Amino acid sequence: MSAAKASAPISPLAPKGGFPDLPVIEGAAFAAIEAGVRYSGRLDVMLATLAPGSVIAGVFTRSSTRAAPVLDCQDKIGGVSESGAAFIVNSGNANAFTGSNGADAVDAVTSAVAGATGVPEQRVFSASTGVIGEPLPHDRITARLAELAAGLSKTGIADAARAIMTTDTYPKGAGATARIGGKTVSISGIAKGSGMIAPDMATMLVYIFTDAKIAKPVLDQMLAELTDTTFNCITVDSDTSTSDTLLLAATGRSEAPEITDINGDNAAAFHSALGGVMLDLAHQVVRDGEGATKFIEVAVTGAESDGDARKVALSIANSPLVKTAIAGEDPNWGRIVMAVGKSGAVADRDLLSIRFGDILVAEKGWVSTGYSEEAGAGYMKRDQIVIAVDLGLGQGASSVWTCDLTHGYITINADYRS
Amino acid sequence: MSAAKASAPISPLAPKGGFPDLPVIEGAAFAAIEAGVRYSGRLDVMLATLAPGSVIAGVFTRSSTRAAPVLDCQDKIGGVSESGAAFIVNSGNANAFTGSNGADAVDAVTSAVAGATGVPEQRVFSASTGVIGEPLPHDRITARLAELAAGLSKTGIADAARAIMTTDTYPKGAGATARIGGKTVSISGIAKGSGMIAPDMATMLVYIFTDAKIAKPVLDQMLAELTDTTFNCITVDSDTSTSDTLLLAATGRSEAPEITDINGDNAAAFHSALGGVMLDLAHQVVRDGEGATKFIEVAVTGAESDGDARKVALSIANSPLVKTAIAGEDPNWGRIVMAVGKSGAVADRDLLSIRFGDILVAEKGWVSTGYSEEAGAGYMKRDQIVIAVDLGLGQGASSVWTCDLTHGYITINADYRS
Repeated sequence: MSAAKASAPISPLAPKGGFPDLPVIEGAAFAAIEAGVRYSGRLDVMLATLAPGSVIAGVFTRSSTRAAPVLDCQDKIGGVSESGAAFIVNSGNANAFTGSNGADAVDAVTSAVAGATGVPEQRVFSASTGVIGEPLPHDRITARLAELAAGLSKTGIADAARAIMTTDTYPKGAGATARIGGKTVSISGIAKGSGMIAPDMATMLVYIFTDAKIAKPVLDQMLAELTDTTFNCITVDSDTSTSDTLLLAATGRSEAPEITDINGDNAAAFHSALGGVMLDLAHQVVRDGEGATKFIEVAVTGAESDGDARKVALSIANSPLVKTAIAGEDPNWGRIVMAVGKSGAVADRDLLSIRFGDILVAEKGWVSTGYSEEAGAGYMKRDQIVIAVDLGLGQGASSVWTCDLTHGYITINADYRS
Repeated sequence: MSAAKASAPISPLAPKGGFPDLPVIEGAAFAAIEAGVRYSGRLDVMLATLAPGSVIAGVFTRSSTRAAPVLDCQDKIGGVSESGAAFIVNSGNANAFTGSNGADAVDAVTSAVAGATGVPEQRVFSASTGVIGEPLPHDRITARLAELAAGLSKTGIADAARAIMTTDTYPKGAGATARIGGKTVSISGIAKGSGMIAPDMATMLVYIFTDAKIAKPVLDQMLAELTDTTFNCITVDSDTSTSDTLLLAATGRSEAPEITDINGDNAAAFHSALGGVMLDLAHQVVRDGEGATKFIEVAVTGAESDGDARKVALSIANSPLVKTAIAGEDPNWGRIVMAVGKSGAVADRDLLSIRFGDILVAEKGWVSTGYSEEAGAGYMKRDQIVIAVDLGLGQGASSVWTCDLTHGYITINADYRS
């Protein structure tokens, strides 16, 4: 997506207080620059470097038309190396669906980063986000690499978060610390994404950094598990990007003991902190959903399985009729019944119940006797809505997060390239 | 859905010339009335009766939260009877998700129709469309049945089409004739539907009448096959109703020979004419999609299987980003690549080609050398758009039809109940 929304008003759902103070991660450094990839006057390239010994894990879009940078990252991500690593990301141009130009541009950028940072090209991970189908003007990026490398700083993460924005209305960051073996481990993450957001992964770029020392198989498994309950549980418009990338770098510079056993207490503490950062970033992406005025949690319980609960939750969260009703502050629970019915999950109309927050709306196949339309309409005026559906069948549960579908979404997307 | 759009301007995509002159079907009669189910001053109940010996086939929504009239129809549709049959349909209230009130209301209406028409209750098929969750005021319908029955007429089908409208902006009808054994067979159909339209079936009510004489198993099979390539190939917003009903009645009053063999020539002639009527009605439903300004055909070829082709076609047709781009007359083929990629079908970015009408837009993983953005933008100004995607893999093919996603859709649905 382009930077068309960069000058748009900040989303009314943006977290208060602006970009957070994130913990410094020893062994990680950041720089950002205005390279004019597509627009001038805005940061549009970020560089991050990781110290030797860093462990890198990643998850990527499952699209069958993945962009060249994603294919390149997937080739490299399995490797383990004692050398450092680098992340190079541009906004303004996705380098997607550009034929053989795509891979050539990735090679040009990653080899230039290797030259500027001393990191082997096999450890340089790139990403591009922006317009599809136009050749990436990689010279504009490579021409600035020396300057970028010279500007690397432990505290440059906020500008890095700004450089990867496209239609985002605010930069997204989240941090946490955990105590492991009496020592502190820190985690800092940034993300971009506001449209084309749907499982699995979305037009999201996410970069998370930690000073934890952790074995690669443990980091890989933890990232996969946590992605399923965070970034794979958000949806803006059900569309899925060709460029989604999440990279997680562990520099190992903390004094805490190495995490080698995913079932151990040390892993549990780190898992919890990392999950918190990922969920926070995922929620920030939804809050910045294109045109969003409401942040919506859909919590499904009582399904025959977790998979069925997820089907129902996503069916509700992706329903244009549910999302437009919420935009109109209309407590239209009939559309929720509709979305349950079309989900493909096992459901019994006469067993399901629906709540808006704590308000019992419907049960046993009909509107609840204590429910009043006024109460529902009052609840819908909030900017954070919880829709809870209990299918009354079993123990399966799943929560997903989404936003409403508004005139703003149409305005942003009906002529995005102009 | 309600009649909120009944006073809206007629869709710019409406077929020219208004409601067509449909062939009279011997053995079928129609009546419509203003019963005030929800709104006053509009036709909102239709009654159709079929002569003794008529054969009835039907297809219904697959929603797991089906409305009471659908469940009742499904109970009855398997039967064969020498007695007549009747269809009773109201708009304004869907009688859906109304607990045990739902089935009681169906019983009240169908038994009253039986009383007024002399048709056994087991052969009275009802449907309701409109708001969900409110008890159907069935007394308003049953109070008018004697009057309705007295008004039955061979030529009343146009008013019947008007009575079943909800957010539709125009009544929908299509007719055809076929020559079988030197004699003419006639087909006349009506439909309603403009939102919550997606496979399988949608908030659609469709009633088709023919004077053909045809064995029930043949009629059943033909209807199922043709539904898959017509009504199950249209989508407005990917949402699926709890009330979709298609009933097909064959009165057998034509002088043409009975159709008993689905593989025979007589069946082929009838199949072709019936398919034409169903496709015409399906297209009319899409053309009246809520807020639609463009009628879009998505034609996918070269897939590994027909199923894969259908997955790709529906992924494109349901993509909010594709649909908003078309609303903005933006030839944004990158979003089509995205939708191919997320479909789940086998695809190779470097083999697929994309055309807008006859314009080759992209091939071999990139924009076509002969393509110009001006040509694409010019094509997008049309009100009928064909998006053709060839995956370059095999012989699988599928076409689906949809409309664009506009501010009009948001306006109609963001506060539909007010």
